Amino acid sequence: MTSEEICEQVWQMGKQARAAAHALTKLSTEKKNEILIAMADGVMAREAEIIEANEQDLASADDLGLTDAMKDRLRLTPERIKAMADGIRDVAGLHDPTGEIIKEWSRPNGIRLQKKRTPIGTIGIIYESRPNVTADAAVLCFKTGNATILRGGKEAIHSNRAIAAALQEGGATAGLPDNSIQLIPFTDRESVRHLCEMDTYLDLIIPRGGAGLIEAVVGMARMPVIKHYDGICHVFVDKDAGLEMAEAIVVNSKIQKPSVCNALETLLIHKDVAKEFAPQIAENLLAKNVELRGDETFLELCKDDRPVPASDGDWSTEYLDYILAVKIVDDLDAAIEHINHYGSHHTDSIVTENEEAAEKFQLEIDSACVFWNTSTRFADGAEFGFGAEIGISTDKLHARGPMALEELCSYKYLAFGTGQLK
Amino acid sequence: MTSEEICEQVWQMGKQARAAAHALTKLSTEKKNEILIAMADGVMAREAEIIEANEQDLASADDLGLTDAMKDRLRLTPERIKAMADGIRDVAGLHDPTGEIIKEWSRPNGIRLQKKRTPIGTIGIIYESRPNVTADAAVLCFKTGNATILRGGKEAIHSNRAIAAALQEGGATAGLPDNSIQLIPFTDRESVRHLCEMDTYLDLIIPRGGAGLIEAVVGMARMPVIKHYDGICHVFVDKDAGLEMAEAIVVNSKIQKPSVCNALETLLIHKDVAKEFAPQIAENLLAKNVELRGDETFLELCKDDRPVPASDGDWSTEYLDYILAVKIVDDLDAAIEHINHYGSHHTDSIVTENEEAAEKFQLEIDSACVFWNTSTRFADGAEFGFGAEIGISTDKLHARGPMALEELCSYKYLAFGTGQLK
Repeated sequence: MTSEEICEQVWQMGKQARAAAHALTKLSTEKKNEILIAMADGVMAREAEIIEANEQDLASADDLGLTDAMKDRLRLTPERIKAMADGIRDVAGLHDPTGEIIKEWSRPNGIRLQKKRTPIGTIGIIYESRPNVTADAAVLCFKTGNATILRGGKEAIHSNRAIAAALQEGGATAGLPDNSIQLIPFTDRESVRHLCEMDTYLDLIIPRGGAGLIEAVVGMARMPVIKHYDGICHVFVDKDAGLEMAEAIVVNSKIQKPSVCNALETLLIHKDVAKEFAPQIAENLLAKNVELRGDETFLELCKDDRPVPASDGDWSTEYLDYILAVKIVDDLDAAIEHINHYGSHHTDSIVTENEEAAEKFQLEIDSACVFWNTSTRFADGAEFGFGAEIGISTDKLHARGPMALEELCSYKYLAFGTGQLK
Repeated sequence: MTSEEICEQVWQMGKQARAAAHALTKLSTEKKNEILIAMADGVMAREAEIIEANEQDLASADDLGLTDAMKDRLRLTPERIKAMADGIRDVAGLHDPTGEIIKEWSRPNGIRLQKKRTPIGTIGIIYESRPNVTADAAVLCFKTGNATILRGGKEAIHSNRAIAAALQEGGATAGLPDNSIQLIPFTDRESVRHLCEMDTYLDLIIPRGGAGLIEAVVGMARMPVIKHYDGICHVFVDKDAGLEMAEAIVVNSKIQKPSVCNALETLLIHKDVAKEFAPQIAENLLAKNVELRGDETFLELCKDDRPVPASDGDWSTEYLDYILAVKIVDDLDAAIEHINHYGSHHTDSIVTENEEAAEKFQLEIDSACVFWNTSTRFADGAEFGFGAEIGISTDKLHARGPMALEELCSYKYLAFGTGQLK
């Protein structure tokens, strides 16, 4: 394909997405749910095609230099395809936030006003590796009445095409408006740039992938971008912490699932309890094969030669692994300063029995999720009761923290008058 | 100043703004209001300095090629300075949205959750011409606990400096944290680029000015931008409109204040009432010296040789003047299509006695404000009862329509546990 053809095709898809967004505003919740069920059926009916396409992708995986972990994320099995279809059915069962009246009031001149939740309109999703994002992202956007343009990575292009076709063809049997879900069928890099430039047609871009991808999109995009950056999450064990609770929370936050963004990466310990807590937590974590990287005071206190000195880079590293950075801090203020400076504004937790300290921590920590006496792992749409999430936003505008159906909506103001003039 | 010095200074201001944002989280509403009153006093106490600085700007106005309208917007008088101070006092009297609990719920495991309104953090305001924006924007941001970096245009640099100094020095007497309000003291173009690039220090940029300024900021900014683009507002006179009401709404929307973004720019008339309504509204508006630019059918119907043919460009022009584009449409669907295609997603109004038509219009029109039987001029923070607004957003993310104190806030999730693990 020539650059000109790529440009034309992507812009044409944008135009189509805008038209689809209009068609979507006319669908009732019942109709949307019916279409979602048809999409799930479509995925199940095309299991063989999807697996075959996935095998093509897996056959190129070595050539593309994919690691074993990446290959595992890429692999689709009958169980995973069933999980994908079940996920779509689950979304059909979720409450539809569009059309909700957020606020309603009247003005002295008799005009009645409503602030009403609406679809955003058109959303671009740029993602890497895992082909199930094709279904997950598309159905959440569809449930909220948004048209999507999907752009997956080349490592999963055959799988993505097969899944998108299953959604489109399945949905069409129940009346899915044309072009509601579009997948860019090629993976030339230029397509990302075109998506980022067409702010007349795309209201929002959500990049899902590594920091490199997100940075590139942020640099190019003319429309809003919602970013799901790293989770450099902290637990602060305060001087008034119950140390048994602190130990359980730290261990859970670190090792319950180290590979995810809400896992603990840096532990801060108040100096007044460090003498007791540092050796205790070190022993526990070392026994669980967690590598510890500590500041000087921690290393002195933990009386074990396995922890290694932390470098400055450790305080801003998302390990996603059995590694923990540990620092002893002078007081609550120092903990807050460290977290706001080195953290990623994702999720941070304080362990303390002191309500005043907790309140100060929750007020001053500038993060999406600020917890008191609970694991950082709790920062999750499902744990919050949101049903399904498209990610955890580290942004502060529009969506912060677990981003679920409500955050895939905009709003508009409706005024109901009887001829009032200004 | 060298480029290096400009770069250093702007980034230094960013770092300072971030520190100020942290200090601001600790201020109570009472304290913030006390500081606002001190700022208002500061402005009044420095009236002479501000006027003197403004005279310096006015002296350069001709050299900078300012039009009379621009000079009028630039000019500060004792009355305007008093209005500025009164505006600050009004903001002190407004409800403080920060700290509000937006939602509160508990999970089956006993964890209590709060979604709590917080400041955004740090906001860059890039603006042109009117020096009163210095005070208006800074105090709305301050009221919501945000630190601001202001960057005004060169035509008002002396006025802006004097106003910023008045706010800073006045506020300081009541405990305004250092660097809460910073004005870039020079106007080199590079400073805008640096602001747009420092997403570690600025959470949001709001450009206030012409399309050229906004476009430039959108192209460069790495952080969210909230845009206040043109208002290409429509009134659609439906076949079931009360024509007397329609006439009053059209006249008011067009001429009550033609220079503002919520003024009417394009009138759409349903063909079934056009024969009666077209000549009637034409006569009325022509008598009020409104230039009419119509499609062929309108020109035929209005039986007057003054209306001129509209070109395609007229449908997407914000005149801000005594000019109105008029088109006869076949039906409601055609009106919706025209508005969604040519409009600016700002404010559009339908006049009809038909509830079903109004409902369809309000559902399908993709604009911030969609009105039924009322003037487009009603799209305004004060008219909505919001007290004060920083502008009317034509964006769909975070803030749409009148952007007031609540839209200058973000939120965070607080979890209150008793040792729960995931």
